[in-house]
Amino acid sequence: MTTVEPVADTRTRLLATALRLFSEHGVEGTSLQMIADELGVTKAAVYYHFKTKSEITEAVAEPGIRELDELVVEAAKHRRHGARVDHLLDGFVDLVVRHRVLVALFSSDPGIDAALAKSRHGVEGFKQALISIVAGGPEPDVTARVAAIVAFTGIAMAGGAPDLAEVDDETLRQELIGVGRRLLGRPRRRVC
Amino acid sequence: MTTVEPVADTRTRLLATALRLFSEHGVEGTSLQMIADELGVTKAAVYYHFKTKSEITEAVAEPGIRELDELVVEAAKHRRHGARVDHLLDGFVDLVVRHRVLVALFSSDPGIDAALAKSRHGVEGFKQALISIVAGGPEPDVTARVAAIVAFTGIAMAGGAPDLAEVDDETLRQELIGVGRRLLGRPRRRVC
Repeated sequence: MTTVEPVADTRTRLLATALRLFSEHGVEGTSLQMIADELGVTKAAVYYHFKTKSEITEAVAEPGIRELDELVVEAAKHRRHGARVDHLLDGFVDLVVRHRVLVALFSSDPGIDAALAKSRHGVEGFKQALISIVAGGPEPDVTARVAAIVAFTGIAMAGGAPDLAEVDDETLRQELIGVGRRLLGRPRRRVC
Repeated sequence: MTTVEPVADTRTRLLATALRLFSEHGVEGTSLQMIADELGVTKAAVYYHFKTKSEITEAVAEPGIRELDELVVEAAKHRRHGARVDHLLDGFVDLVVRHRVLVALFSSDPGIDAALAKSRHGVEGFKQALISIVAGGPEPDVTARVAAIVAFTGIAMAGGAPDLAEVDDETLRQELIGVGRRLLGRPRRRVC
């Protein structure tokens, strides 16, 4: 073990491996040792990057949470209400579909929640921001708020649903956008 | 402590108290001792009914899960597709609204999931049954399946959403049924 390891790359591979093992065995059923074995490194090498499984779980979820934050900021820049809603819906569906495995883990794994207080906070902040964007104002009416919550939580849950795991990304994306537009009162459009 | 306690009544009060404490402090933040103190009984009295907190969590969730099962059976008895969907949607919304505190706990508490493997199984079975009822057949198309999953998971999440906690039951019920009918392609109707 005298070669210098490319540290950043090991970290990336470690997180990808952890996510795969989490989705196969659940967060609770995955040990640091299993991650090390799968990567072909020692447990010490895993420890070099992460001290606990919670740190790994947080790091696995972090890019998705950051993208959620950025999405809300970008969507809010549009002047027209319709453009804001479209931006938010398209971006959210895209994010959910790209991170399907992670979303599935979030919505189904009993072990991930406890480890993710920080991320839950991020998700909560996102929810507040999207409700105010979609419902359009500081005092949105109940109908608009209910539609916004059903649309975005429903899309996230469907994106991670095992029942839809065999649906390909592009089909799922179009279906979720279709459902979202119907719920949020946006006109139909052709998806190019 | 020589009086004979009405056992069934203590059990009912215990579960109601547990649910309230769970929603105030989270499942993990609630101890058997706290439940005993709140009820004004000894910890031994709590132990008489339940050996572990998991047993309490399961017992708290059990009536809701049982109602879900019964709902699917009843809905499936209708001959017309539309009547099955209406029965399922009305019953589900009613159940979610009546059990708002429990639903909120299910969808937000990091501690409840781990304790509820059994109930999760029940919820999973319900989901399968409702998809086949709503999408109407053993090989439902993707559009119908996506709409069904978004509708029912979205309704459950909205029913338990802290953002809607101040909305009264009747308003929430009407809003959720409206959203559900739109998603499931059912015609609008007046709610009497």
